[in-house]
Amino acid sequence: MTADVKTQIIERVTPDLVQVEQALEQNLAPRLELVKQIASHLLFSGGKRLRPLLFIHAARMCGYRGGQEVMFSTMFEYLHAATLLHDDVVDGADLRRGRDAAHTRWPAARVVLTGDFLLARALDIAARTGNPRVISVVADITGEMSEGEIDQLEKKGRTDLTEARYMKIIERKTAVLIQGACRCGAILAGSSTREEAALADFGFHLGMAFQMADDLLDYTATADQLGKNPGADMREGKLTLPLIHSLGKAVPRDREWMTRMLADSTFDPGQFSKLKEKLESLGGISYTRNMAQREVTRAKQALETFDTSGSKTILTLIADYAVHRKV
Amino acid sequence: MTADVKTQIIERVTPDLVQVEQALEQNLAPRLELVKQIASHLLFSGGKRLRPLLFIHAARMCGYRGGQEVMFSTMFEYLHAATLLHDDVVDGADLRRGRDAAHTRWPAARVVLTGDFLLARALDIAARTGNPRVISVVADITGEMSEGEIDQLEKKGRTDLTEARYMKIIERKTAVLIQGACRCGAILAGSSTREEAALADFGFHLGMAFQMADDLLDYTATADQLGKNPGADMREGKLTLPLIHSLGKAVPRDREWMTRMLADSTFDPGQFSKLKEKLESLGGISYTRNMAQREVTRAKQALETFDTSGSKTILTLIADYAVHRKV
Repeated sequence: MTADVKTQIIERVTPDLVQVEQALEQNLAPRLELVKQIASHLLFSGGKRLRPLLFIHAARMCGYRGGQEVMFSTMFEYLHAATLLHDDVVDGADLRRGRDAAHTRWPAARVVLTGDFLLARALDIAARTGNPRVISVVADITGEMSEGEIDQLEKKGRTDLTEARYMKIIERKTAVLIQGACRCGAILAGSSTREEAALADFGFHLGMAFQMADDLLDYTATADQLGKNPGADMREGKLTLPLIHSLGKAVPRDREWMTRMLADSTFDPGQFSKLKEKLESLGGISYTRNMAQREVTRAKQALETFDTSGSKTILTLIADYAVHRKV
Repeated sequence: MTADVKTQIIERVTPDLVQVEQALEQNLAPRLELVKQIASHLLFSGGKRLRPLLFIHAARMCGYRGGQEVMFSTMFEYLHAATLLHDDVVDGADLRRGRDAAHTRWPAARVVLTGDFLLARALDIAARTGNPRVISVVADITGEMSEGEIDQLEKKGRTDLTEARYMKIIERKTAVLIQGACRCGAILAGSSTREEAALADFGFHLGMAFQMADDLLDYTATADQLGKNPGADMREGKLTLPLIHSLGKAVPRDREWMTRMLADSTFDPGQFSKLKEKLESLGGISYTRNMAQREVTRAKQALETFDTSGSKTILTLIADYAVHRKV
């Protein structure tokens, strides 16, 4: 199924993707070569362009025919890239998409400022829409994400993170931006309140599913697929749903052992395999998969209000892809 | 004269300042206590609120009567505070306005993210104006400032910085934001292109004067007045106009000696006094003062197009204050 969904999406979005890549290059327009280098290192390292695609097809599904959706869509990729640059500096992560994280190549200060530059680019493009509501949503996203990241930092290494708090963290970290991209597509198209709410709903649940699937892949994917060793979140002290659920089901001895692995920065393949088995047997893996699937179902339900269209099909396929992808 | 100008300004703007302080507290509205603490540490540490005041009186001078100029003015203080937080982390400066810089109290990552939060607040308020041109200007400012800071970082420790490059650096670092605050006041008021250009011109020259005066004070003010030892720029490797000009006039031996002091992080009061004498005798001090005064004159000329009003008087007084202040 996976390859199938992916193939179906790629067949449909390739022309958009070509245009998105061009627009990302054109709109970046830094004055300094160094800013271009740092920004490009991350921006053109094989991102999926999920957020621009969602914005583009949300707008088209809502009847937008203004011809600027591709150009405007770049704001969500710039915003995403800005937060990744700041997050990598904050987390001290060494790898991103299988490449060295920017701050391992350039001093952290320059990376932080390049993140600011990308935020400014996103804001500039939001302003170019001439739509104050789009700009408000972008501002809200930025605020939520920065607070979310601080919240996650504060929770690092805490073994008592509840499922509810985890949900709040991934909402801010991922769902808010994906929701915003979908909602802004509807706003740009001047759609009704009902349609805008439906797309916001779609984006929210899709974002939650994407992050849960990401957190699952951090345990189930191979180093080759991830571009880094699995279990990276855990070694950074980040508790995610597979582990949270399993800790709740574990006997004290196992719980203690799992807790010890949290925030231990060394990767031991043998120990990691043993942990994966525990997560399987305690149900953390299947529970997370089911929760993600539930979010996908909700996301697709939110689309029911829209008539059949090519863009609706693409959004539906992306929702399926969220949980079936291997990277 | 100084005390006189300052007194005259304070008499006129105290009611505005009270409202600006309230608005800064009300609009901050963070969800997390930690964000509030970090943001407040800098925001409420005795800033002059120069940028909000300029915006408010630019808008009023252009006939704005919408009643929201104080609320909107906070975006420029948030933006200013965001860049100060990031710059302090980037520069590794220990003191800011005589207090510990935020990153000496909290981990740098949290300070960076709080900067992002403040940027988002500025953006949110820009969006609330409902005026896409205001938002565009705010976006441009953010981009220019981040690139300017990277440029300055790249130039750190370079003893061959020309006066022209210095002017470009302070333009981005300071003038662009002050110019933006003045221009946005005109835009908010729906003023003519000519009036908007005049206020942009005023803000630009005022900003240049302010930064030159700042760079002068770094050499001429006392530790008490500055809240930190003088010569901090030099010790951070930043070449500013008093030194640039003096280096150009110095004999090789003196030039070598002054160059050695650049980027030497130790503060030696005796050596520093000697350097100040050199800057005096080589004309770097008076040259910088004259250049700043020239910018003030140009700023005031830009205001000539406006009829006499209370706000025009305040803007004129602020221009005088730029070069006559002691801190």
